[in-house]
Amino acid sequence: MHRNQFSPGSTPDASGLACEFSALRSLTEALVAPLSDADATIQSMPDASPAKWHLAHTTWFWETFLLREHAPGYTLHNDRWPFLFNSYYEAEGARIARGARGLLSRPSLEEIFEWRAVVDAAMAPLLADPAHADLIALGIAHEQQHIELLLTDIKHALFQNPLGPAMWDARSSPPALTTAAMGWHQHPGGIAMVGHEGAGFAFDNEGPRHRVLLQPFALADRLVTNGEWDAFISDGGYAKPRLWLADGWAWVQSEHIRAPLYWGEDGTHFTHRGWQQRDPHAPVTHISYYEADAFATWAGARLPTEFEWEVIAAAHDPALGNQLDRASPPLPSGSPGLFGDCWQFTRSAYLPYPGFRVPDGAVGEYNGKFMSGQVVLRGASCATVRGHSRASYRNFFYPHQRWQFTGLRLAKDLIQ
Amino acid sequence: MHRNQFSPGSTPDASGLACEFSALRSLTEALVAPLSDADATIQSMPDASPAKWHLAHTTWFWETFLLREHAPGYTLHNDRWPFLFNSYYEAEGARIARGARGLLSRPSLEEIFEWRAVVDAAMAPLLADPAHADLIALGIAHEQQHIELLLTDIKHALFQNPLGPAMWDARSSPPALTTAAMGWHQHPGGIAMVGHEGAGFAFDNEGPRHRVLLQPFALADRLVTNGEWDAFISDGGYAKPRLWLADGWAWVQSEHIRAPLYWGEDGTHFTHRGWQQRDPHAPVTHISYYEADAFATWAGARLPTEFEWEVIAAAHDPALGNQLDRASPPLPSGSPGLFGDCWQFTRSAYLPYPGFRVPDGAVGEYNGKFMSGQVVLRGASCATVRGHSRASYRNFFYPHQRWQFTGLRLAKDLIQ
Amino acid sequence: MHRNQFSPGSTPDASGLACEFSALRSLTEALVAPLSDADATIQSMPDASPAKWHLAHTTWFWETFLLREHAPGYTLHNDRWPFLFNSYYEAEGARIARGARGLLSRPSLEEIFEWRAVVDAAMAPLLADPAHADLIALGIAHEQQHIELLLTDIKHALFQNPLGPAMWDARSSPPALTTAAMGWHQHPGGIAMVGHEGAGFAFDNEGPRHRVLLQPFALADRLVTNGEWDAFISDGGYAKPRLWLADGWAWVQSEHIRAPLYWGEDGTHFTHRGWQQRDPHAPVTHISYYEADAFATWAGARLPTEFEWEVIAAAHDPALGNQLDRASPPLPSGSPGLFGDCWQFTRSAYLPYPGFRVPDGAVGEYNGKFMSGQVVLRGASCATVRGHSRASYRNFFYPHQRWQFTGLRLAKDLIQ
Amino acid sequence: MHRNQFSPGSTPDASGLACEFSALRSLTEALVAPLSDADATIQSMPDASPAKWHLAHTTWFWETFLLREHAPGYTLHNDRWPFLFNSYYEAEGARIARGARGLLSRPSLEEIFEWRAVVDAAMAPLLADPAHADLIALGIAHEQQHIELLLTDIKHALFQNPLGPAMWDARSSPPALTTAAMGWHQHPGGIAMVGHEGAGFAFDNEGPRHRVLLQPFALADRLVTNGEWDAFISDGGYAKPRLWLADGWAWVQSEHIRAPLYWGEDGTHFTHRGWQQRDPHAPVTHISYYEADAFATWAGARLPTEFEWEVIAAAHDPALGNQLDRASPPLPSGSPGLFGDCWQFTRSAYLPYPGFRVPDGAVGEYNGKFMSGQVVLRGASCATVRGHSRASYRNFFYPHQRWQFTGLRLAKDLIQ
Repeated sequence: MHRNQFSPGSTPDASGLACEFSALRSLTEALVAPLSDADATIQSMPDASPAKWHLAHTTWFWETFLLREHAPGYTLHNDRWPFLFNSYYEAEGARIARGARGLLSRPSLEEIFEWRAVVDAAMAPLLADPAHADLIALGIAHEQQHIELLLTDIKHALFQNPLGPAMWDARSSPPALTTAAMGWHQHPGGIAMVGHEGAGFAFDNEGPRHRVLLQPFALADRLVTNGEWDAFISDGGYAKPRLWLADGWAWVQSEHIRAPLYWGEDGTHFTHRGWQQRDPHAPVTHISYYEADAFATWAGARLPTEFEWEVIAAAHDPALGNQLDRASPPLPSGSPGLFGDCWQFTRSAYLPYPGFRVPDGAVGEYNGKFMSGQVVLRGASCATVRGHSRASYRNFFYPHQRWQFTGLRLAKDLIQ
Repeated sequence: MHRNQFSPGSTPDASGLACEFSALRSLTEALVAPLSDADATIQSMPDASPAKWHLAHTTWFWETFLLREHAPGYTLHNDRWPFLFNSYYEAEGARIARGARGLLSRPSLEEIFEWRAVVDAAMAPLLADPAHADLIALGIAHEQQHIELLLTDIKHALFQNPLGPAMWDARSSPPALTTAAMGWHQHPGGIAMVGHEGAGFAFDNEGPRHRVLLQPFALADRLVTNGEWDAFISDGGYAKPRLWLADGWAWVQSEHIRAPLYWGEDGTHFTHRGWQQRDPHAPVTHISYYEADAFATWAGARLPTEFEWEVIAAAHDPALGNQLDRASPPLPSGSPGLFGDCWQFTRSAYLPYPGFRVPDGAVGEYNGKFMSGQVVLRGASCATVRGHSRASYRNFFYPHQRWQFTGLRLAKDLIQ
Repeated sequence: MHRNQFSPGSTPDASGLACEFSALRSLTEALVAPLSDADATIQSMPDASPAKWHLAHTTWFWETFLLREHAPGYTLHNDRWPFLFNSYYEAEGARIARGARGLLSRPSLEEIFEWRAVVDAAMAPLLADPAHADLIALGIAHEQQHIELLLTDIKHALFQNPLGPAMWDARSSPPALTTAAMGWHQHPGGIAMVGHEGAGFAFDNEGPRHRVLLQPFALADRLVTNGEWDAFISDGGYAKPRLWLADGWAWVQSEHIRAPLYWGEDGTHFTHRGWQQRDPHAPVTHISYYEADAFATWAGARLPTEFEWEVIAAAHDPALGNQLDRASPPLPSGSPGLFGDCWQFTRSAYLPYPGFRVPDGAVGEYNGKFMSGQVVLRGASCATVRGHSRASYRNFFYPHQRWQFTGLRLAKDLIQ
Repeated sequence: MHRNQFSPGSTPDASGLACEFSALRSLTEALVAPLSDADATIQSMPDASPAKWHLAHTTWFWETFLLREHAPGYTLHNDRWPFLFNSYYEAEGARIARGARGLLSRPSLEEIFEWRAVVDAAMAPLLADPAHADLIALGIAHEQQHIELLLTDIKHALFQNPLGPAMWDARSSPPALTTAAMGWHQHPGGIAMVGHEGAGFAFDNEGPRHRVLLQPFALADRLVTNGEWDAFISDGGYAKPRLWLADGWAWVQSEHIRAPLYWGEDGTHFTHRGWQQRDPHAPVTHISYYEADAFATWAGARLPTEFEWEVIAAAHDPALGNQLDRASPPLPSGSPGLFGDCWQFTRSAYLPYPGFRVPDGAVGEYNGKFMSGQVVLRGASCATVRGHSRASYRNFFYPHQRWQFTGLRLAKDLIQ
């Protein structure tokens, strides 16, 4: 699992969970169907993991926390694999270095699929038991997270290949959209409630629900587009130090950054469907926090706080909610949003909410695994599994990272 | 200058400024009196600068922004020195790499002192002119900051020498204090005002003054001591991953951190007076944000936010204010607080306040020079010049940095 | 090709070449038969290449230098692949960074086999043409070299996997040998002839044949064994700086070297057949030049020069020749020498012979591709293809490299 | 000491030694007279040492190996200084990291001079004792080596300063020479004797004297000049991979090498007298082995072996000897050869001679301190102390190093 954990207040429905479990496990496998054993083995950078590793790690989670603990008589499918597929659970023992995951040509992709089948079969009785519902809901959310990471990691891996291999076939583009003038959701400021509460699964970092004080502000009603980013570049955006945070400017210079990740020559960008023309009306993606901040400064705006974003998202459900919906399904074919919407940077550092408590136990080991220096992203991307999104959901990355589907929604102060 | 700038609302008194200017320039030179040309030349790491460089850079500031702009007929003392002693003002042209400052054996310390005298003499007419009062107040604050950096940088440089040279003579220790039981300043939460306002100098990053919402909390009435830190170490604090932020734990392991910076064997630590016995009742210093956070977790507490700190500091002036006062004067001898109080970590990321605007112009270039990933420290240290402290003052460093006099004041939630 | 080139004086027999070509191409494919697509894709360090890359690169050689130049009407199988599979021939255009070869999940292993089949078929008419005999002999030697590299590179890759996967099945060990007392081939010194001359293929770096002056010396009649290396370790060999070259000692300390590469706990080592017990009577392998030199110093001996080795090898053909013969065939199963003999370090820096001239043209680009700082190894290893060995053969690596089958034969001065 | 040791066969004259000792110690101090404490403290790279360190290290040598061992009642001037000023004598205990020498602002330059005076006085009785003559001769040779290093290291340090400070005043240039056509010393090949033998000091690595076999060759009668190097650059010498050794080409690209070290714009170069115009007729200096080899290839020639150089040097004493003589005196002013002749690269790897034995004991610790990957240079430079040169002298550096006065004398094969 990436880093979040479930909220103990959630009470999922057991029969629904069994159905959801089955659908999710199938989705995971459908998504990797185009990958060869070799595709699924390579690792392009330490931040990313091989697709095979994601398939195995999610399975390790079910085996470790459900089957080993709660399925009488279950024996580990292979007792040397936990060393390979544990991510960072200290309580679960040693594990290989993160950067060495790409050298695991064995076990093969086929062996991992066999393991998945064994685990799925063994899980059946537990899925019906309400005593495990919380843990199963957590495992589902965990695997949903890894689906998104799998998709972004394999995109990064294929991008390294000079042949520019496509994971899925190209298809006829949707008719070109036009970019609407940017509208603004205005908010008068004041005390607001944020954070998750009530029924339904949420990660622990989404709570406790608490009051925050907002200044009067406005949040854009759409994302910044590729075309707008082209204008930023044309205006010398990457060459003007005053637009950038000091560490952002250092990053631009040391890494020779001149455009979003995956942008190529002549208006192209690399996608799961290989090299394609960029749509100037589509949201820009694969930018870092540094780039998002510089663009906002250039545009005379700023990044929203995570609470400004959440308050608008919760209130403007019809508008924003639809966007989330459209963005969600990362299906292997036909999804109109696959190159669509994205996680949106906020200016908020990733910190625990007031009153947050670290739960005990192995699964809960990472509820308090906060880091310094990461920023919160809100929303969801075209690679997020449908149903995994919430207005209170908090994603977080380091400011230089941009291999996720990351984009930008502007905010500004209102005169008080 | 380090990074902050003046608040336009301040209205310093011109005749007071002339007096303050003179006293400060003398203080700077008195502090470096024990240093040889070689002492003042060396640079122990890119984060630190040579003492000579600080002496020159502050002088460059006066020459560049006051004399060159406002003193008719003034010609640069040496027109090749700005390349050496500009820190990062892009508008002021190119400059040598930060890490190469320690190779500047020329100009000599004596030549820098001559330059200082020339500039001080040329400044006299300007000091009396109210039109320059704001800029002069800024220059004074700038030089005050560099005095603190000079003191912490030279300490770090001398520490590298296996001979452990002392900058000042050792002296008889004050009678050993006892550590009082930790008391707590309680606060019921609610809306509070923070940030600078009104007369008196402040940096731009201390405003605009604005409302914040506080949760009920308590702030410790004293700092964590060396003795308490010994207990943390004895309890295996540096060996328990669950106490640490994830990136803090990675830092502890890769850097083999086992104690605060400057701690030696057998209860000693390195000081400006050479190697000395640590006082278990004195505040712990030279810890990183990672260490501060881990200690707080170990102690069942947490770090305060910067606003919790400020609200208590403003309200408890008699208590906290005295501490600041005691800590302030970094005199070359006799100061009882020299190894005393310290900057205190908060959990707040360093971000601009709502409504903050970046000023125009060369001096104002860095008002908006915010970085990501830095945390706010509040208070002042034994190396802070008397008069440079304010309840609204915001210092900031990266979470791994600890060569400043950095310490820890605990906070905790109150049950709502 | 690794780095060597053919000697223009060689005159191979065309019909023999066709037979040799066919056998070699089959051997290459038989050796990789146990590898999956993923096994053949991964790259464990920049020094090593993926097995798939070796299969493709050798095929690229035939296509580029034979088919493209001399087969009328031949069109490249895929015109984007040369970018991937050129090694370093500047005249043949750009190529991907060496360290990025392990990210090429595409083309697949199957596609490479198809390419091999197409190229093999197209080669048939050229094999019969004596005009191409020299170039074909060179291509054969080239592919022979890559077979050895493929075997050592895949061993290194599988070694990274904590599961310790075996490429071939374990088999019953041969009966344990005993270690004979070390005998010495004595030589009185004087003028000797070294280097290749006459019929038969050789690389350019083996000539011109020339005179050298030898001091009286003796060369051991067998290799240093694992058991003898155990004694070196037991005697603190890795902890005594006086035994080591200065840069060797720095390497031991920075890399924490304590034993040959692939040595495990409890007398084991990693092999193509997985983790096995070491035979104390077998030659030690996978040592660096630094280790070889330190052992020789410890043993009161020294490394031979390359000419001492060659003169003895040429003279003692019955004895040494048999060893070479036994070492040669790297068959996928059943080879008694697979864990047997090894390349032997000399103290000679790798330099061109007197009168050496760099040939013109693309294939000849690398005849003069000498490097500084490499040392010559003589002999052949258990992974060397039968027929690729010669007394005049010069192999060469950097002093820290040890993933080849590298071992040690001692020499000593005779009193004059 | 750098790395060499004395030859036990040498029998210096005691009264001459006392005189030589005194003159040398004075010369060392005269050379550093222009340096400030800060100049003498800084270290520009780990390969180089501060001037103050050289002054102290040579003094440490006398104190450690002569006074401590042989002067009854002598006590160490400061018992903590050996930790600072030991270079790498393992038998003499721990020492600070080489790269940290530039942080030693204490002891001051003045304190080092005081130490030198104390040691010089204490040495007086020992200088007259023939029993110590060998060791004293070694100490003199050791200090001679460090004078050369001191001069090249301080040049490198001052070069880092953008002000380009001069160590000595500029002076009127000698009248421009013309470059003579290159003549050749021809040699018919055959057996020759090389290495030191007989009376007079020599380092151990210069023996044993032994026979070598030479091929017919010719050695240039003058060095390659700056003007000839300009032609190499104009012809694209730094942009043609075929001219370079493979590792040389990698070095050129990674380090962006385009000219010798210290070359500036518009025909200038940096010298001990600051930035000066280059003399096109003067020998090129400050080139690496890679550059020397590439130039030789470009010129249709090659580097000589160290034995070719030695045989010609010994035979053509009148011609070559004069050159050495002219090059020798590194006087603080007035030396016509200060920017003159230089060490000359050979293609020979630095290896012990046949029959070389490592002596026992602390002083002899480093006779066997050979490294791999270094090349031999012959001759002497303008910074070599008069009297330190010999035809058998072997200097050695890594192929990328070029902060010494290194240049190039061409060689070529004669047709047999």
